[in-house]
Amino acid sequence: TKMLMDKEISNGETYHMNSGDGPYSYAKYSSYQKAIVDAAKKMLVEAISDNLDINNPSFGSSNTLRIADMGCSVGPNAFIAVQNIVEAVTLKYQSMQQNPQALEFHVFFNDHVANDFNALFRSLPPSRPYFAVGVPGSFHGRLFPKSSLHIVHSSYALHWLSKVPKEVMEINFLGLKNRRNYSTADEVLEVFSRQYKRDMQSFLTARAQELVGGGLMVLLVVGMQNGAIFSQTCSGMVFNLFGSCLMDMANVGLVSNEKVYSFHFPLYYTTPKELGALIETNGYFNIEKIEILARPVEHESPDYRICSFHLRAAMEGLVEEHFGKEIVEDLFERYTNKLEENSFIFDEEYRKETHLFVFLRRKIT
Amino acid sequence: TKMLMDKEISNGETYHMNSGDGPYSYAKYSSYQKAIVDAAKKMLVEAISDNLDINNPSFGSSNTLRIADMGCSVGPNAFIAVQNIVEAVTLKYQSMQQNPQALEFHVFFNDHVANDFNALFRSLPPSRPYFAVGVPGSFHGRLFPKSSLHIVHSSYALHWLSKVPKEVMEINFLGLKNRRNYSTADEVLEVFSRQYKRDMQSFLTARAQELVGGGLMVLLVVGMQNGAIFSQTCSGMVFNLFGSCLMDMANVGLVSNEKVYSFHFPLYYTTPKELGALIETNGYFNIEKIEILARPVEHESPDYRICSFHLRAAMEGLVEEHFGKEIVEDLFERYTNKLEENSFIFDEEYRKETHLFVFLRRKIT
Ligand SMILES: Nc1ncnc2c1ncn2[C@@H]1O[C@H](CSCC[C@H](N)C(=O)O)[C@@H](O)[C@H]1O
Ligand SMILES: Nc1ncnc2c1ncn2[C@@H]1O[C@H](CSCC[C@H](N)C(=O)O)[C@@H](O)[C@H]1O
Repeated sequence: TKMLMDKEISNGETYHMNSGDGPYSYAKYSSYQKAIVDAAKKMLVEAISDNLDINNPSFGSSNTLRIADMGCSVGPNAFIAVQNIVEAVTLKYQSMQQNPQALEFHVFFNDHVANDFNALFRSLPPSRPYFAVGVPGSFHGRLFPKSSLHIVHSSYALHWLSKVPKEVMEINFLGLKNRRNYSTADEVLEVFSRQYKRDMQSFLTARAQELVGGGLMVLLVVGMQNGAIFSQTCSGMVFNLFGSCLMDMANVGLVSNEKVYSFHFPLYYTTPKELGALIETNGYFNIEKIEILARPVEHESPDYRICSFHLRAAMEGLVEEHFGKEIVEDLFERYTNKLEENSFIFDEEYRKETHLFVFLRRKIT
Repeated sequence: TKMLMDKEISNGETYHMNSGDGPYSYAKYSSYQKAIVDAAKKMLVEAISDNLDINNPSFGSSNTLRIADMGCSVGPNAFIAVQNIVEAVTLKYQSMQQNPQALEFHVFFNDHVANDFNALFRSLPPSRPYFAVGVPGSFHGRLFPKSSLHIVHSSYALHWLSKVPKEVMEINFLGLKNRRNYSTADEVLEVFSRQYKRDMQSFLTARAQELVGGGLMVLLVVGMQNGAIFSQTCSGMVFNLFGSCLMDMANVGLVSNEKVYSFHFPLYYTTPKELGALIETNGYFNIEKIEILARPVEHESPDYRICSFHLRAAMEGLVEEHFGKEIVEDLFERYTNKLEENSFIFDEEYRKETHLFVFLRRKIT
């Protein structure tokens, strides 16, 4: 086990979405995420209108409102989300008979250092109503001075763990011994759930320092309905199919078994109940709202190639890092075919994964 | 003339230093600039100590001090400069018996959108005493909300014009007609000087909005001694030699005459007198200090290859944009040889270019 335990596994802090220009770029294959951001727009405008307290002294007298987007990738969804927030705040000012002209927005786009910030900067909307900056670093740690932000936003990013938890290595070893893939086994989920709790505590505590008292946080979180079992959701089955492609390749000697059993996506799908509980435990925020967003309507017959592209746009970097460049084409080809053979997983009954709309307010201390 | 006038010439807003990893990277060939930053350190620490008014109410009560570096390139000089400023401010707090522990630094690294921010972010000092962000965009326009900065720094960047002024096209045409290079002729210098005034006005006015009242600005500016004539300085002669290499290449048909006559570096070397006068005209700043920095000591015999690399690190992008990739190797090879043949230009009597240390304080309005 020694060798297996020591091996570097997919490092949550170095991966990144495919960048601006390639054929499988994240910008091109993130339309599903865009639909989520759009679906959240109405809720977001309402929530900001109800909760933004512009006369709160901790907002300062400087007439600058600071917004951060955590896990922005290379756009364009982050730009749309920020635009929605700016519009909501401006509306709120107008409704309070205050002059929004005096207000200036400073927007902080955050992602990992490995994110393609050059592409992000090139694609910033040219006539944007805000000053834009890029913030490199993990949102699981501190990134901003104390009390410097008024609104924090994050979409489609908080299901990324900071790393594949070390404990999972023991289970990988069992899997390898018994030639069974435990990827979605209960023990693995338990270990991932503990990692998620640690990561969310770090995230919430860091943001609590950075937000002013009364500051707002809008989180669009990938998750599941309460009570759902991950391996029985469409997403769980998608990951299992991906895993089975890897096992097929191991069986014909294209990759080693060790590599396959030590590969995990550093992702976790929470539930409203679990997430709510850990925000309560953290204690810095009032929960104004946790709701399940209606799932975006999809095209009649899902195109498996596009579906495969989606996963590829998000995951290629990780896969390459772990297995090397050589297997990528073959793997995603197999994966596309597997999806087609197993199209039943897209049936309504398995679509238990959801997007949570979470609206928090920093307690005033 | 129509064709010549319409042609896009070197666009001041798109060029960038060579990025992190190449053989002619800016990071590798900016040791001269580093020597300037080092030489300025003592002056900077003193000036901050004398002028930083930490009890000034416009510094706010937030315990965050915001520093911007304008034209940072990809490091490392920007990091050294910022480190010096952070140390100077911390010392000042200690000397005032105030607890610098409570203070947090937010540092904004600015450069053109085309700058390699990915390389900048990758090379940020890992254990830095500040929160770092990147700010894409031209420092000739607004980049920050009103009154959001406390200290602005810029080194080795303000001699870049926003563009080669349009008027110079007329003169290029004359040059072409008479087969003479007017690059450093009086008319050209005059036109460049007017562009410099416009650009510096934009720069100063933008920074005046962004700095708090009493905020400080430290500028290390490439320039000349009062009364010096550019074409008789070492730098002026270096540019003329570069131009003569291009003319040689035009003579043997490797580039067109039009291309050569329409090429100018968008640079301008000011003098203490000229710069002082235009800061006065701008009116937003008190001049605390304009001084000529002692020239860094250089190695006994200058290595012409290194000297050529220096220009290449800074200018390759511009040259490529105007002439195309093909001529670059040949051109810089010729240029290195020209430097060697004309080594007299490095003689002490021609070293009239200098670095100005400029220390300004935003007037309190
Ligand atoms: N710890 C972390 N810190 C910063 N960014 C992270 C992160 N973990 C994941 N991410 C980033 O989160 C992004 C998720 S993709 C979502 C992008 C965008 N918010 C949208 O809605 O379309 C990726 O770019 C990934 O690099
Ligand atoms: N208008 C402008 N706006 C922002 N950056 C500019 C600019 N004009 C020039 N620059 C940048 O200024 C830098 C000059 S090189 C100097 C880099 C660094 N300050 C040092 O001292 O070593 C380049 O990176 C160039 O892209």
